[in-house]
Amino acid sequence: MIYLDNSATTAMYPEIIDIIKEYAVDNFYNPSALYTKSLDVTKDMKRAKQKIIDILHGSGNIIFTASGTEADNMAVFGVKRFKDCKILVSDIEHSAIYQSVKKLQAQGVLVEFVTVDKYGIVDEDDFISKLTDNVALVSVMHACNETGAINDIERLVKLTRQAAPRALFHSDGVQAVGKIPINLTRLGVDMYTFSAHKFHGMKGVGGLYLKKCVQINPLILGGGQEHGLRSATENVSGIISTAYALNKTYRNLNIDKNKQIISYIAENLQKIVPNMILNTNFERSLSNILSFAIKNTRGEVLVHLLEDKGIIIGTGSACSAQKAHTRVPLALGLSKEYFDGMLRISIDNSTTMEDAEEFVKEFASCYSYLESVMSGN
Amino acid sequence: MIYLDNSATTAMYPEIIDIIKEYAVDNFYNPSALYTKSLDVTKDMKRAKQKIIDILHGSGNIIFTASGTEADNMAVFGVKRFKDCKILVSDIEHSAIYQSVKKLQAQGVLVEFVTVDKYGIVDEDDFISKLTDNVALVSVMHACNETGAINDIERLVKLTRQAAPRALFHSDGVQAVGKIPINLTRLGVDMYTFSAHKFHGMKGVGGLYLKKCVQINPLILGGGQEHGLRSATENVSGIISTAYALNKTYRNLNIDKNKQIISYIAENLQKIVPNMILNTNFERSLSNILSFAIKNTRGEVLVHLLEDKGIIIGTGSACSAQKAHTRVPLALGLSKEYFDGMLRISIDNSTTMEDAEEFVKEFASCYSYLESVMSGN
Repeated sequence: MIYLDNSATTAMYPEIIDIIKEYAVDNFYNPSALYTKSLDVTKDMKRAKQKIIDILHGSGNIIFTASGTEADNMAVFGVKRFKDCKILVSDIEHSAIYQSVKKLQAQGVLVEFVTVDKYGIVDEDDFISKLTDNVALVSVMHACNETGAINDIERLVKLTRQAAPRALFHSDGVQAVGKIPINLTRLGVDMYTFSAHKFHGMKGVGGLYLKKCVQINPLILGGGQEHGLRSATENVSGIISTAYALNKTYRNLNIDKNKQIISYIAENLQKIVPNMILNTNFERSLSNILSFAIKNTRGEVLVHLLEDKGIIIGTGSACSAQKAHTRVPLALGLSKEYFDGMLRISIDNSTTMEDAEEFVKEFASCYSYLESVMSGN
Repeated sequence: MIYLDNSATTAMYPEIIDIIKEYAVDNFYNPSALYTKSLDVTKDMKRAKQKIIDILHGSGNIIFTASGTEADNMAVFGVKRFKDCKILVSDIEHSAIYQSVKKLQAQGVLVEFVTVDKYGIVDEDDFISKLTDNVALVSVMHACNETGAINDIERLVKLTRQAAPRALFHSDGVQAVGKIPINLTRLGVDMYTFSAHKFHGMKGVGGLYLKKCVQINPLILGGGQEHGLRSATENVSGIISTAYALNKTYRNLNIDKNKQIISYIAENLQKIVPNMILNTNFERSLSNILSFAIKNTRGEVLVHLLEDKGIIIGTGSACSAQKAHTRVPLALGLSKEYFDGMLRISIDNSTTMEDAEEFVKEFASCYSYLESVMSGN
């Protein structure tokens, strides 16, 4: 089986099983208890947290959550808003951000959406024009989950500091972490989201990085864990295994190899499919994602045909795969006849050129079959 | 090592490792994706959910969360409030409920607290007196995490239906699930919270049962998972292993054996410690918890002395162990000289009478040592 939907989720590293055994079966203690065995677990969690901060070159803290979605919600709902303040987000934020700001909008908070280009990169002029000094929160994803587009967060943060000094800057890094080197200190963000299952960690673990001195309100209240910012008994093996997964993923990262594979796929797909639009800009994109849209074609059918051949690819974001999917294609400026034909290939560090060749071969066969069916031959 | 703090957390069943391997390493697919392998995972999750509903005799749905705390927060913040409505909770709710309603109170929502007796059982007269028809939410824990007291939820629900027909009734069942047979349909609750790590499941998995037709607002927004009520990529192995853990825990449950062990410990502790108050009422309590308070004694010291002998016990709720702990002792009517001396023994299905004998022997020795130190001998 060739799995090319790594932006939806990844296989957990098998060694994490040992970490789970250690912290869930053997040293399973509640970190909040007072005995030494609990304090030892707490120390191990703190070490893991620091390791993640170090790998991402942060200067602050991480609040562990159960998902990137929860971390995004914390960023939106946790910001201390002031009278007549405004929230600024990009047009193609993940639904975790989009639905959260829509809720605030329904409650009367002013929310403005910044347009993106056809690859999903934030339009800087539009960003600047909407960046008034009453902005309380900016949220722009680091890398787009649909197209792989990388936004220049460092630049957007600098613009924000100048024009909206009271604003907190959040970036959803769920797709970026593990795919490009991250230097949170240099980016300058106040908050940054990641999700462990996107880099071979466990499902059910995410985190929100908070730059030193950044203060937000908690979303979940209770026993006061995570400095009072996220109550609940800590997911100890989840937290500790996240540090392991992140470290291993960066150790194995080979951006050049990924680029070669994605370029090879893109070139060959363009030969196979005449009416195809590439949504990925290779100059400013993650090296592991290729997004494309085929005219008047149901991408879902190709997904199923390919699965029968042992190849798994995705249709845009998995989080919205089962719902009408028009927000992002619209924002990218695609015309309607391409909406159903959006497909996403996302490789990981273990994907080989042989996998890519096999995919191209099978894709050609599936597409040719689909064409013949559609034309009635 | 004899572990007697199972109300804080439990050791995960080792077999769950195999479930994690199956759904995180092998069939690791994102349930929201469109390919067959994802749909298969979704089916397995649905089966697990139904199994939990069946074991708890529910007639409704379960929304999986990352913790009992999150489920409690969902219940409090998710209820659709109306003008001039009131929230009614017991005096000794877990901090997940307490801190949540305090937040609403600070926002101007009327919150009333129902007193409890010295064992932690809700005072029915006080409950009735505060149960006006403008109550929008009642939250009373099924079993108290500190004392083990079991509230008569079925009766409280009936009273609520009569006096406050618009109210939703939530019960925090985190300590009750796996310890007593639960029949959610008979209890009649609208919402009910559980947490997997309290019955040998994984940390980071909880759930909120919603009776059929009960509608609440989500706490976490995004991709629309869990019927739109709790967005985030599902914690597949967490969900599936919860069904396994719950089933095994009930299969192994031996309430009579637990009662014998707890009674044996209680009788012997009372012989050893002259100035001791039992906070547990054996007539209306979980069979696995014994809470007691020793006058003018720092319970924490006994915890450490016992740990040196290979025995682990707790100081009240782990979630509040590291903070000043006065709310619950006050509600139980303990006088101040007992506050620091609260201790909790909580056994599980694997605890033996030999463990209890060993505990009593070592407790006697530790207590005698502590007494000699305190009296300067």
